[in-house]
Amino acid sequence: MSVELEQISLQKQFEEVIASEDKLRIQEFLNDQNISDVADILYDNEDYEGQIIAHLSIHRATSVFKILDTSTQKRIIKDLPAFKTTELLNELPIDDRVAFLEELPTSIVRDLIKTLGVEERKETLEVLGYPENSVGRIMTPDYVYVYEDNTVSEVLDIVRKFGKSSETIDVIYVINEKDELLDDIRIKEIILAAPTKKVNEIMDGRFIALNVTDDQEVASEVFKMNNRVALPVTDKNNILLGIVTIDDILWIAEEEYSEDIQKIGGTEALDEPYTEMPLFKLYKKRVIWLIILFFGELITISAMQQFQNEIAKVVLLATFIPLIISSGGNSGSQASTLIIQAMALGEVTIADWWKIIRREIFSGLLLGGTLALLGFGVITVWHLFSPQTFGIYYLHIALTISVSVLGVVLWGTLVGSTLPLLLKRLGADPAASSTPFVATLVDVTGLLIYFSMAFLFLKGILL
Amino acid sequence: MSVELEQISLQKQFEEVIASEDKLRIQEFLNDQNISDVADILYDNEDYEGQIIAHLSIHRATSVFKILDTSTQKRIIKDLPAFKTTELLNELPIDDRVAFLEELPTSIVRDLIKTLGVEERKETLEVLGYPENSVGRIMTPDYVYVYEDNTVSEVLDIVRKFGKSSETIDVIYVINEKDELLDDIRIKEIILAAPTKKVNEIMDGRFIALNVTDDQEVASEVFKMNNRVALPVTDKNNILLGIVTIDDILWIAEEEYSEDIQKIGGTEALDEPYTEMPLFKLYKKRVIWLIILFFGELITISAMQQFQNEIAKVVLLATFIPLIISSGGNSGSQASTLIIQAMALGEVTIADWWKIIRREIFSGLLLGGTLALLGFGVITVWHLFSPQTFGIYYLHIALTISVSVLGVVLWGTLVGSTLPLLLKRLGADPAASSTPFVATLVDVTGLLIYFSMAFLFLKGILL
Repeated sequence: MSVELEQISLQKQFEEVIASEDKLRIQEFLNDQNISDVADILYDNEDYEGQIIAHLSIHRATSVFKILDTSTQKRIIKDLPAFKTTELLNELPIDDRVAFLEELPTSIVRDLIKTLGVEERKETLEVLGYPENSVGRIMTPDYVYVYEDNTVSEVLDIVRKFGKSSETIDVIYVINEKDELLDDIRIKEIILAAPTKKVNEIMDGRFIALNVTDDQEVASEVFKMNNRVALPVTDKNNILLGIVTIDDILWIAEEEYSEDIQKIGGTEALDEPYTEMPLFKLYKKRVIWLIILFFGELITISAMQQFQNEIAKVVLLATFIPLIISSGGNSGSQASTLIIQAMALGEVTIADWWKIIRREIFSGLLLGGTLALLGFGVITVWHLFSPQTFGIYYLHIALTISVSVLGVVLWGTLVGSTLPLLLKRLGADPAASSTPFVATLVDVTGLLIYFSMAFLFLKGILL
Repeated sequence: MSVELEQISLQKQFEEVIASEDKLRIQEFLNDQNISDVADILYDNEDYEGQIIAHLSIHRATSVFKILDTSTQKRIIKDLPAFKTTELLNELPIDDRVAFLEELPTSIVRDLIKTLGVEERKETLEVLGYPENSVGRIMTPDYVYVYEDNTVSEVLDIVRKFGKSSETIDVIYVINEKDELLDDIRIKEIILAAPTKKVNEIMDGRFIALNVTDDQEVASEVFKMNNRVALPVTDKNNILLGIVTIDDILWIAEEEYSEDIQKIGGTEALDEPYTEMPLFKLYKKRVIWLIILFFGELITISAMQQFQNEIAKVVLLATFIPLIISSGGNSGSQASTLIIQAMALGEVTIADWWKIIRREIFSGLLLGGTLALLGFGVITVWHLFSPQTFGIYYLHIALTISVSVLGVVLWGTLVGSTLPLLLKRLGADPAASSTPFVATLVDVTGLLIYFSMAFLFLKGILL
């Protein structure tokens, strides 16, 4: 059955069940569905979101709650009776609880934390104490640990005893009495080993740990390079503090990329989904960059006023302005997104600056040369069909345009590729060198290049 | 120890060990390192890449090989003696083997497939038979399956027997005699259950399966919404064909976003890392869009030629052209990246088109209004300090510019937000509505808007 068909029939069933107002039947129906299907039903029936969560067992309610988007989560928390909210928040795994609290205003966070149990409150405050976007914020203390002189059958006993409350039992952690991390062992190795074997016999001492203050992007990179479903988190003394599971990393990778794309497009990074964001808040995120760019473009007015006499003499010159400046903007946009992207993937670092610039000079010359030839060809052919458009000096004009395009594209490529490097060097986000920003930067210089070329090739002829 | 310090000391150790030319010592050293550290060493010592792989046990060699980037993989395959290549390819898990083969020219693929064992050849050809970017291409047939009347202790025996060669044992699959998928059970449930319990007693019948022809992006979405480390893959008759593991999904999510970002920047999606790509190949990916955009901008020349007389009368008009058209381009870039992004995350679909357009009309009016007021203010203040710049009709000019900016920004926002929707509707990739493409589209209409406003407000005064 296709996913869409399934969706429709689920929605119909839900409508039927909810219309029956039979509490038991609703509960039964909801408990029969997958977590993600419940989430879908909930999204499709906004009026019932509170009811749906309330009808689920608390364990399943938290599983659904944690995959919902923040704005829906907020509405549900508001809808639910206070005791249900408390139950839900206490049941939520620590990493998801912190992820939710992070999105709320401080005053509400303070109130909600008061409703937590002693243990939950302690761990929440501890995790909230780590820097934003650090590994500490997404780790969970619910893991299974053993000591190196435990036997395999003891390990299995420990897993049976503590595994229920732990986030994953796919990986077991070996520590010593000082809580220092010695190794991580996949549950596979445990199951495959003889029951009398000791842990230190199947240890290989090869483990990869994240530091609690590491950036979450680092964690994402480490997961990608190592075939693990969970990674241990330690402090600088190698004390095991918690683990990070790969499912949280999928979300982080997505968030990072979303922010990059939004910044490249010239908006501040949105912290809510596009459709959920109040119009005025979205306006504020967008208008800031537009104003900055607007003031940047004001410089083009001054720049062009220097050339008013030339334009007055050869009005034709003005007609090429959009072509010239947008060629620079386009090649700059290309170069900057390529470099931002390569930096985000770790393919290039600032140390490669010279290699990049060398490549981009060549690329700029090739790209600019191609467009220059095209421009020359177009004007020549145009002249054949309509000789009065460019007049008898059409070859001079063609030369002016061609050389300007070459110069502007080379310049755009250079600016676009070095700006992300420069921003990174200054400690800023390379993605902030948005395509509109690069285009605006190149506009002013593009005009200068253009009119210099016009002087060079048309002085004494048309100017 | 910080990651960087560790790196440096590893590199030093490697240099020492490799200089010793002691085969046993090199082997021992390499076998002591993590897979990702070996990969790092390999990247830092390109001259030794073949040697490093050759010195590893075949099992670890494949683990390293599969996380390397394609160009390094290709070089290594070329470097290694033929028998080593054969061994490596045969040992490589099917999903990684196919991922590698996909990147090679067909002729080489044919030669390499001949070197595979009978079983490996069969499964490889089968997987290569699924559509590109489909789930079938990334699935592995190495999973553990049981029947519903197996007991827990039988399941553990099966896991012990077949678990070694399977990609993951975190999830066990329950099938019937017709190979139809009945359920998936986490190994956790098995370990926690009493040994005499039967599988059908711990089954809950709730499973989520991917279809073998599903797009990989769908898989990525399903993983994100469901807390699983592996998902089963079935055909349309619910026959279990293989599984997909979450670590492959991390790479796919990254690839998708990279392609989106590159397209937004106005390049064709690159299939190799930026630095690894031959300059001329990179040139081809970039020049195509630049040429298309160049021809698009040629229309601006025709458009402006209609207004040559006006420009000749009021040269001042020309000086505002870059400001006007770039305001449209910038707001269009913003809108298109926001919508592309929201579509990639599934926050909006084509069905929301009316909601989006309504929002963007309001946003465009707000943003355009803001810039219009700014423009009016700037010209007025400018006039106070330098009355000769805009002359006595500065208010008329300010009005022309303001209204034009409002119109162009509104238009840019509309075009930028509807183009990705339109592309999607036509079955194309929304990300192809790159920021340079939107900017170019808006340039021509921006000029028309501008000169229409000039006629409206300046006719009979300056024109």
